[in-house]
Amino acid sequence: MEEKILELIANKQYGELRKQLSEMNPADIAVIFEEIPEKELAVIFRILPKELAAEVFVEIDSDMQQLLIEAFSDKELREVMDELFMDDTVDIIDEMPASVAKRILKQTDAATRKMINHLLAYPDECAGSIMTTEYIDLKKDMTVDEAFDRIRKIGFDTETIYNCYVTDRSRHLLGIVTVKDLLLNKKDCIINDIMEENIIYANTLDDQEEVVGLFEKYDVLALPVVDKENRLVGIITVDDAIDVMQEEASEDIEKMAAILPSEKTYLKTGVFETFKARIPWLLFLMISATFTGAVISGYEDKLTQFAALIAFIPMLMGTGGNSGSQSSVTVIRALSLGDIEFEDIWRVIWKELRVSLVSGIVLGAVNFIKIYLIDYLLLNNLDKSVALPEMIIVCLTLVLVVIVAKLVGCILPILAKRINLDPAVMASPLVTTILDAFSLMIYFGIASVVLGV
Amino acid sequence: MEEKILELIANKQYGELRKQLSEMNPADIAVIFEEIPEKELAVIFRILPKELAAEVFVEIDSDMQQLLIEAFSDKELREVMDELFMDDTVDIIDEMPASVAKRILKQTDAATRKMINHLLAYPDECAGSIMTTEYIDLKKDMTVDEAFDRIRKIGFDTETIYNCYVTDRSRHLLGIVTVKDLLLNKKDCIINDIMEENIIYANTLDDQEEVVGLFEKYDVLALPVVDKENRLVGIITVDDAIDVMQEEASEDIEKMAAILPSEKTYLKTGVFETFKARIPWLLFLMISATFTGAVISGYEDKLTQFAALIAFIPMLMGTGGNSGSQSSVTVIRALSLGDIEFEDIWRVIWKELRVSLVSGIVLGAVNFIKIYLIDYLLLNNLDKSVALPEMIIVCLTLVLVVIVAKLVGCILPILAKRINLDPAVMASPLVTTILDAFSLMIYFGIASVVLGV
Repeated sequence: MEEKILELIANKQYGELRKQLSEMNPADIAVIFEEIPEKELAVIFRILPKELAAEVFVEIDSDMQQLLIEAFSDKELREVMDELFMDDTVDIIDEMPASVAKRILKQTDAATRKMINHLLAYPDECAGSIMTTEYIDLKKDMTVDEAFDRIRKIGFDTETIYNCYVTDRSRHLLGIVTVKDLLLNKKDCIINDIMEENIIYANTLDDQEEVVGLFEKYDVLALPVVDKENRLVGIITVDDAIDVMQEEASEDIEKMAAILPSEKTYLKTGVFETFKARIPWLLFLMISATFTGAVISGYEDKLTQFAALIAFIPMLMGTGGNSGSQSSVTVIRALSLGDIEFEDIWRVIWKELRVSLVSGIVLGAVNFIKIYLIDYLLLNNLDKSVALPEMIIVCLTLVLVVIVAKLVGCILPILAKRINLDPAVMASPLVTTILDAFSLMIYFGIASVVLGV
Repeated sequence: MEEKILELIANKQYGELRKQLSEMNPADIAVIFEEIPEKELAVIFRILPKELAAEVFVEIDSDMQQLLIEAFSDKELREVMDELFMDDTVDIIDEMPASVAKRILKQTDAATRKMINHLLAYPDECAGSIMTTEYIDLKKDMTVDEAFDRIRKIGFDTETIYNCYVTDRSRHLLGIVTVKDLLLNKKDCIINDIMEENIIYANTLDDQEEVVGLFEKYDVLALPVVDKENRLVGIITVDDAIDVMQEEASEDIEKMAAILPSEKTYLKTGVFETFKARIPWLLFLMISATFTGAVISGYEDKLTQFAALIAFIPMLMGTGGNSGSQSSVTVIRALSLGDIEFEDIWRVIWKELRVSLVSGIVLGAVNFIKIYLIDYLLLNNLDKSVALPEMIIVCLTLVLVVIVAKLVGCILPILAKRINLDPAVMASPLVTTILDAFSLMIYFGIASVVLGV
């Protein structure tokens, strides 16, 4: 399909091209647009039917949007903007350099401009910043038939018509009626009698992660957003909620891997941008590892007596890190899905304590058997192998390291959440670095006692 | 709210309780149900109005469902099951022990039973296993008004009515009409003229992760599912797609932290279950770390000459691990969001190579400055500090380790995907363990050359 379209473009068969594109989905056209040479973009864009053009415009990335806007006449720009929903308009303006944003605003009427500026003022990542202001509003004394008339009248310009919002004169939200309710009730029913008054809603300044959690919990297609005075100011549609969900999951995953979150896709992010997102944590963790080095340096005089123990350092630090990141990552995800809260901290600690005890003992036992069976008996290299005291030191350390690791791993994210830090930052890399130092202290501490040096 | 309900239950004020619960959302009632003592569950459940009861039943967890089913009479069981949508019924049966499942199936009529068995046969995590079989089907020669009649007739029993599916006699999918299309067109319009023929759909055996990706890309509220003969067999609704999305993200995150995925929430998972999910990888990684230990053992004779270098091992291994997990996690997420594919491997490698070169040099330089400035000049402890050859060894190793780490980190997940392994398994823990050994080999290798031992 894609190749055929590109061929039509190359051969300038614009009539056939228009016909083919008109039957395609905006998201698919946007993918093809990425393959079109920059200088031909505006020409191809103009071929699209007006409404489809606007839909494609929303799907392409902001660099391409800027290119097109710069190629547009004022009239063309106005035509595209007129077709867009308010939330998309705001998103686009938000991404543009000031001069382009100004030019877009100039093409809108005073009321729209005021609304756009109002929406732009909401902080990032709050409900207000992802809502749209076009929705179907009804009055409670309307009949079902009157409601349908209103939907038919303003439905063309709203993103979703399936949830309708019943408001009073001062825009306070009284209830919700779905089109399903309207269709399944008699035409002369009064809205007041069929509307749902138990409303799930968000406030403009609510965190977007919590807001999209409501979609998951209550299975709604759209969520009304009210301001401080409880007046309806907009709605969030489920497709935008899905985008936020995936964004938040990616962000959590990036933070867990010690990367500063980015909004662009992997291949679209430049080398320098990727570098900038990764280097701060790498530097911080590298410097932090100095403490672990200091633990070793502190035992430098005894290192010759510990010679046989050094080979086990990577295994102990690795197992500690892995145990810690298992519990920290589980807890972080549970926190962000709302499964646990600060109040559950003791239940979490008690659970992790038991899990770590069992895990530690199993790992210690397996390790003992492994060293004993393989290194000692099977390979029969008695002199090169470790002696019993060393084996005990290693296995005992292992048990303790796993317990400490799991506890640190589960406590840090919960504490972070408590002081309003993002728990995801307390994932593997930071926890591992902290645990590395702990593991070595435990290891050399036990070794000093057992070996009596 | 919750406390008030629990108080009503304790005081057995069932009249008021029924009134209060009737106004609540099923998801909220389900939360309260978790606080109700087991033996009172069935009593409280029977208080709920029939339709709400079924909605609550879907929201509670499977242990509680089983408890209730065991308390139900056959008639009650049939009443609840009659209210459920097909996909929920199948999910519930899937979670029940065989005897309970049998009892449920016995309460359904032959046609439903056949359908349930058919749906149960779909493999987990495919489109067929998450679809529901109730949808609005239209014929292409119907008018808009006739379509509305059909929706009014069967709409009560379908999960969503907003997407209607136009099929021919043998159930082949011809087009889609939304209720918005129906409402915004004249009553005597023919469906054939207004239906969208460019259909986004899934096949029954498509992987659920790919299927939910279609919701994100095309912003649809429901997705039709067709069988091998291209006949419409069901639809997937957006609320189920959202659940799958969060499930898949959790699964990726768990795999990245070397945990076997679990479907239960954190606090609901027992200690032994959690242990079982975590111990396999811990064991595997612990045993694998033996190789890293072997690298050290291999240099045991030279360890005394390397004494000053040992303190830097945690920093080098840590930085290697962190660099590797940064690139592996980024690549894994990009793979699962469909941003990159196997074909992009060279672009990914080329990008990571440049990022790692810059990162490595910056980290090496900072490390050099840190050792030189702080340890050497500032603290002025010339004898205890490391000499120039050691400093060069450490910094050179750092640059090389970062480059190797980023390359290994980006290549392994892509290769895993290629051979149909889950790329998420190639995240931090496994990559780190592999890199630990590499880092040490590079370190001691360079040290041997520079120090000439």
